[in-house]
Amino acid sequence: MFGLHAVEAALRNPARKVNRLVLTENAERRLVEALGAITHKIEQTTPRDLDRILGADTVHQGAMLETEELPEPEFAALAENAAGRPLLVLDQVTDPHNVGAILRSAAVFGAAGLVMTRRHSPPLNGVLAKSASGALELVPVALVQNLSRALDELKDAGFTVIGLDGTADAVIEETDWISRPIALVMGAEGKGLRELTQKNCDVLARITTDGALASLNVSNAAAVALHTAALARRKAP
Amino acid sequence: MFGLHAVEAALRNPARKVNRLVLTENAERRLVEALGAITHKIEQTTPRDLDRILGADTVHQGAMLETEELPEPEFAALAENAAGRPLLVLDQVTDPHNVGAILRSAAVFGAAGLVMTRRHSPPLNGVLAKSASGALELVPVALVQNLSRALDELKDAGFTVIGLDGTADAVIEETDWISRPIALVMGAEGKGLRELTQKNCDVLARITTDGALASLNVSNAAAVALHTAALARRKAP
Repeated sequence: MFGLHAVEAALRNPARKVNRLVLTENAERRLVEALGAITHKIEQTTPRDLDRILGADTVHQGAMLETEELPEPEFAALAENAAGRPLLVLDQVTDPHNVGAILRSAAVFGAAGLVMTRRHSPPLNGVLAKSASGALELVPVALVQNLSRALDELKDAGFTVIGLDGTADAVIEETDWISRPIALVMGAEGKGLRELTQKNCDVLARITTDGALASLNVSNAAAVALHTAALARRKAP
Repeated sequence: MFGLHAVEAALRNPARKVNRLVLTENAERRLVEALGAITHKIEQTTPRDLDRILGADTVHQGAMLETEELPEPEFAALAENAAGRPLLVLDQVTDPHNVGAILRSAAVFGAAGLVMTRRHSPPLNGVLAKSASGALELVPVALVQNLSRALDELKDAGFTVIGLDGTADAVIEETDWISRPIALVMGAEGKGLRELTQKNCDVLARITTDGALASLNVSNAAAVALHTAALARRKAP
């Protein structure tokens, strides 16, 4: 994991087990300013050495952190926290910028968590952590082996599963987000939801659009859906 | 400009002056399938030669197009088309993926157009065109020298200028999108709106959020605002 914001957020998170913290003098000063003090052992480095480790194209801002993965949430626990707070499920969204931005929107709009497949998903570090801008520490993420089985388990845990699909008849704006936990499934750019994933949804719905182009970037679609749910939650008694 | 979707959209656009069209055999077949026929002169190439021209990291899909910039819209013309359709204004948003995704959302939700500065903005081609997924052909884009002056001109043309600012008291959801043209100004990630830009806005407003993190990715913020306006337009008599 790299970048000042991602590393700062990880250091603030008591659930993060820190294995190795590597900082330039500059990054250390800025993190100490932000955090008060750093209790972890710091390995000092130079920007040039970090370039060598992470690649010259990486915007590391002088900070690199090696950590353990965060503990994964149980679906039952996610369901308990999901009243009016949708759970996002990603069907093979592979772009780390998109998944990072989705995590960020999930934190901004208070989603219950994120479920994605262990394979065909970007790793929970690096580019994704940087795009998430600290949200990786705030949003529970569950990695599953098999998405169809996970959808069944979510239903057993009490979720209604809605698949986002641009060709659906129903619109997402008419969803009842409040009276039952909602899991919102989104597919990869271009490909959309896989056939088996679609079959496993309770209902398919689209975002109301009004223009010459039909398909949104997946992180933009997630933001719109989460915003809609957040407004509904705010209006609910 | 490269990528099958971006090149296809450009070829569909009668306002695009084509200077040079370079295609692999495969890309030519797929474009002919999509467009019926191609009337422009095609230079045949191989994937390897395109890699050499565009760089091996570029997802060109066998298609490259050299064109003139599209003619720029007048503010008065944008104002005429802006009833219920916000005009987006970007204050030094430099990431081409973000600007591309914003253009895509602008096309999906029927925005009136996009204004950005000629400097400190990504070029209207390459990565931006690919992220925009054809929207560059659908959304009028005006490049201006000086953003403050442009905001003054937009006001003269009848626009109310709203600056998106996470710390504002007013919320964007209560905007009257319908009875007057709205120009929505958004700043770069992290930096937000510049001070002078803020001063030149009629009002500042934030997106209603409900989570532990405050700041959205700029393209996600744009999508949420445009969706809100599109819903309002749909409800308007």
